[in-house]
Amino acid sequence: MKRKSLEGNVCAVARSLDIIGDWWSLLIIRDALSGIRRFSEFQRSLGIAKNILTTRLRSLVAEGILEVAPSSDGGAYQEYAITQKGRDLLPVMAALGQWGSEYLFESDEIRSILVDAKTNRPIEKLQIRSEEGRALQPDQVALARSTR
Amino acid sequence: MKRKSLEGNVCAVARSLDIIGDWWSLLIIRDALSGIRRFSEFQRSLGIAKNILTTRLRSLVAEGILEVAPSSDGGAYQEYAITQKGRDLLPVMAALGQWGSEYLFESDEIRSILVDAKTNRPIEKLQIRSEEGRALQPDQVALARSTR
Repeated sequence: MKRKSLEGNVCAVARSLDIIGDWWSLLIIRDALSGIRRFSEFQRSLGIAKNILTTRLRSLVAEGILEVAPSSDGGAYQEYAITQKGRDLLPVMAALGQWGSEYLFESDEIRSILVDAKTNRPIEKLQIRSEEGRALQPDQVALARSTR
Repeated sequence: MKRKSLEGNVCAVARSLDIIGDWWSLLIIRDALSGIRRFSEFQRSLGIAKNILTTRLRSLVAEGILEVAPSSDGGAYQEYAITQKGRDLLPVMAALGQWGSEYLFESDEIRSILVDAKTNRPIEKLQIRSEEGRALQPDQVALARSTR
């Protein structure tokens, strides 16, 4: 199915989905955030067909979310390194992970979660807050048009 | 293309994507969060074919993210109301919106952003924090296996 491009959309959520709103792309970014760099490692982690992985990696490089880097062990194969733009997707991953952990697992079911690497304790639940740090509920936020 | 189901996956991001990792579903949830309830309003907002909208709404109801409600004006048509499970996706939307606003718009370009409804000021940037509220960078977090 051909998707309508949301490239010119005024909604930042829509425009983001146009770039990363693909199931495989988000899982590739998740793996890249957790340190995976090689084609073969992505393939093993995701169980994805080579041609699909190739297309998705190429598109993530074109969008500046990954960048091609020489092999870290001096080998012949190139690697894919996450960029700052890609690293800044961590809150998206954390939010997806926290929601899934709350609603899609039994309470005693093993799941992988994001932890503070120093203490091994779960990260704080992401919370919508006002500029002054006040917690906001969904009915206390609104959409507004703005420039940066 | 048939997708591999990630239903039994230990990764909460993957399991979430299995449920909402569809471009249209996320845009429907975005609209429902901003108060849209009627089939015709979703259709107008999204420019989506009726059959696709019908399928996606049915699946979001089956997942408990939307629920069917009687028309709020007493009319004959049913409406779709967002549930608590759906409202709890607001941080995912906010994270996608903030990333898109930062990277996919020119600085003077008009975009729609989430604001504190009381002050009309942008919400705080979502931040990964430790339990004690310390801001964490991507290299300061790790994945760990856990039960709730």
